[in-house]
Amino acid sequence: MRHKRFILPEELIPTQWYNIQADMKTKPEPMIDPRTRKPVKAEDLYPLFATACADQELNQTDRWIDIPEEVRAKYANYRCTPLVRAYGLEKALDTPAHIYFKDESVSPVGSHKLNSALAQAYYCKKDGVTNVTTETGAGQWGAALSYACSVFGLECAVYQVKISYNQKPYRRSIMQVFGAQVTPSPSMSTRAGKDILTAMPNCQGSLGTAISEAVELAEMTPGCKYALGSVLSHVSLHQTVIGLEAEKQMEMAGEYPDTIIACFGGGSNFGGISFPFMRHNLLDGRKTRFIAAEPASCPKLTHGKFSYDYGDEAGYTPMIPMYTLGHDFQPANIHAGGLRYHGAGAIVSQLRKEGMIEAVDIRQLDSFKAGCMFARAEGIIPAPESCHAIAATIQEALKCKESGESKVILFNLSGHGLVDMSAYDQYLSGSLLDTGSQENI
Amino acid sequence: MRHKRFILPEELIPTQWYNIQADMKTKPEPMIDPRTRKPVKAEDLYPLFATACADQELNQTDRWIDIPEEVRAKYANYRCTPLVRAYGLEKALDTPAHIYFKDESVSPVGSHKLNSALAQAYYCKKDGVTNVTTETGAGQWGAALSYACSVFGLECAVYQVKISYNQKPYRRSIMQVFGAQVTPSPSMSTRAGKDILTAMPNCQGSLGTAISEAVELAEMTPGCKYALGSVLSHVSLHQTVIGLEAEKQMEMAGEYPDTIIACFGGGSNFGGISFPFMRHNLLDGRKTRFIAAEPASCPKLTHGKFSYDYGDEAGYTPMIPMYTLGHDFQPANIHAGGLRYHGAGAIVSQLRKEGMIEAVDIRQLDSFKAGCMFARAEGIIPAPESCHAIAATIQEALKCKESGESKVILFNLSGHGLVDMSAYDQYLSGSLLDTGSQENI
Repeated sequence: MRHKRFILPEELIPTQWYNIQADMKTKPEPMIDPRTRKPVKAEDLYPLFATACADQELNQTDRWIDIPEEVRAKYANYRCTPLVRAYGLEKALDTPAHIYFKDESVSPVGSHKLNSALAQAYYCKKDGVTNVTTETGAGQWGAALSYACSVFGLECAVYQVKISYNQKPYRRSIMQVFGAQVTPSPSMSTRAGKDILTAMPNCQGSLGTAISEAVELAEMTPGCKYALGSVLSHVSLHQTVIGLEAEKQMEMAGEYPDTIIACFGGGSNFGGISFPFMRHNLLDGRKTRFIAAEPASCPKLTHGKFSYDYGDEAGYTPMIPMYTLGHDFQPANIHAGGLRYHGAGAIVSQLRKEGMIEAVDIRQLDSFKAGCMFARAEGIIPAPESCHAIAATIQEALKCKESGESKVILFNLSGHGLVDMSAYDQYLSGSLLDTGSQENI
Repeated sequence: MRHKRFILPEELIPTQWYNIQADMKTKPEPMIDPRTRKPVKAEDLYPLFATACADQELNQTDRWIDIPEEVRAKYANYRCTPLVRAYGLEKALDTPAHIYFKDESVSPVGSHKLNSALAQAYYCKKDGVTNVTTETGAGQWGAALSYACSVFGLECAVYQVKISYNQKPYRRSIMQVFGAQVTPSPSMSTRAGKDILTAMPNCQGSLGTAISEAVELAEMTPGCKYALGSVLSHVSLHQTVIGLEAEKQMEMAGEYPDTIIACFGGGSNFGGISFPFMRHNLLDGRKTRFIAAEPASCPKLTHGKFSYDYGDEAGYTPMIPMYTLGHDFQPANIHAGGLRYHGAGAIVSQLRKEGMIEAVDIRQLDSFKAGCMFARAEGIIPAPESCHAIAATIQEALKCKESGESKVILFNLSGHGLVDMSAYDQYLSGSLLDTGSQENI
């Protein structure tokens, strides 16, 4: 029988995260405090973030960072996640390429987001805070943090982007089952929300705005810290557990990827699967390609510019050196809510600048076409975000068909789409628009 | 670190199903053809079911039945499923009991149903049929068979119980993504459907009626066979892969269950986890308890009577020796659609008659209360059906708390509830009725 699914024995599950900053010849430029125009220090971030997260954010020297025992105990509930050889998809495409995917959809909350949520909630608990706030786009991050907070006995308040709150009511319910308080953003409960609602009464929200609201709530609430689901370096750090596992699993499969693909919102699932493999490009002369699949309607890597910009819409955060479409960019209402973010994290942006990372734009209809093909071939209905990675994988696999090359392609299945079925409904009934729009709720 | 999650190495994954009929001293009584009043022979079932399934149905002699290589190759996409020690739930209950669950929710379609769907679709393909019909209650079985049919290149038509079609639109979409045709039942497309709609125009359907419609379609359509998701002995046979894995995983954990619990609709997930352990009661003098958790509103094991009855509402099927509430019983509209069935399979009924199986009734509100507690403790939102098993587990664990005993309880988490969030919404908002009713859609 062909070997299809690779799971690491427990003793091989990573006990450390990989900090790629330590191996980068040119480090990412520092975040800047917009008030002082000076580089941000870890201490500057302590009021907002868990202390350990702030330290990790600025750490450019330690290659390996221990995963706390308490976090590993929770990882053990679902890790190692499977590495799967997608024989079904290969057959459907009639390609000589060897396609593998890392299946993060099997986490209890259905996506990779839990890898960082558990770490951030644990560190918040350790700091003695009682409440955590965050934003969520598609709801994957909000669900993950809601559960992580319930695990560590913290209260959780989530600002869910309004378009997603309406498109994906089940995600809101999931967060509520885990005990979280969920508010659609923009809301009237913060100054940032009020300002944007005054200017644009029908605003359907964006991750940038929801971040502003969550940050504002954290700053106004004693004993409350803020947690971010992507973009920042410590989030990508936590996600490297994906790539570290995949590296050993590819070894079990007896192959090494020529190409690694992930969808791209702020960069955390992309960095998570890529960075551990990229270290062999940086250190051992490997030539693996890394492809970020972003939505055509929010194309920061292919059409943004590299500059200092705010991480949120209202300008509460430090300025980050990033590929950006502008912090006030209002993305179209595509169903891949997790990709509706204006900028890319500092590490990924630096690597992109150096040509280490490629990027492709995927249109909404192409993403769902790819998702349906994958579902029928492999049985897993992918999240709209993950559909972008699948579409890019299919493009590469079809190039192999043309050239006759048996390249090894690995992509990250960041999550399942079981709570996004209304989007599939629209696609199957022909009513889904290609890049998303207001009517496409 | 505490060992929490047990996964079998590939070489220990079962290659045979366990046929408990071979080890039963008193075999289940035969099915009866209502026209001839004679026992049904395998050949009588060939027109309706895949040949191999019909043979398995009547097989009372072979203890072990090989899982075809082609089915094992598909099992390999998600099996072995994890056995998990529910430390979180134990802590929440403050019980000395050791609680384990077998997590069938990680299958691509989110439930145990795929174990039999893959087998039945494969056997249908082998018989040369092109189309398969079935019924589905909550949609778990329909989703599983839709995917299994797409895997083996078969067309699939599903009659989904109307209440569930309306309560769980996402499940319909899932089946459609896999390429199935989905019809709400009762429908006007069959005589059985027409008859019941004429008598009860607002009928919200039941599994019994949907079975009648699917059987009728199969009988009227050349090249079409029928597949059933529970009740019959060959379905439970396919599900024994659950218990066979769990047996080896409990060995890895160094324990043996005192009590095994599963929710109960027609008996397939219950039989699947129970029978392999029950063989040690039958053969080796073990005293493990087996508890079926059924809904208070559809209590065939606790309030039904043992007699010959039809498997479907219209009376198309052979008569089965079963605990039954009557084949025309119309269950209340609880969200656990998979448990809304009037009867219990022949094997389970015989074992129940002999006192090998206990049963408890769970009310709808208690089931969701248990489900929310489990979700917060373990991160997985259980299917409404599985909530019944959890509620029964909690009852047993609390008895242990009272007595101070550290009993080992194993339950089957038959599926996740991510597509049932509207039910959780109702529960959390206080609008869910205790046993379900027409208004509770």
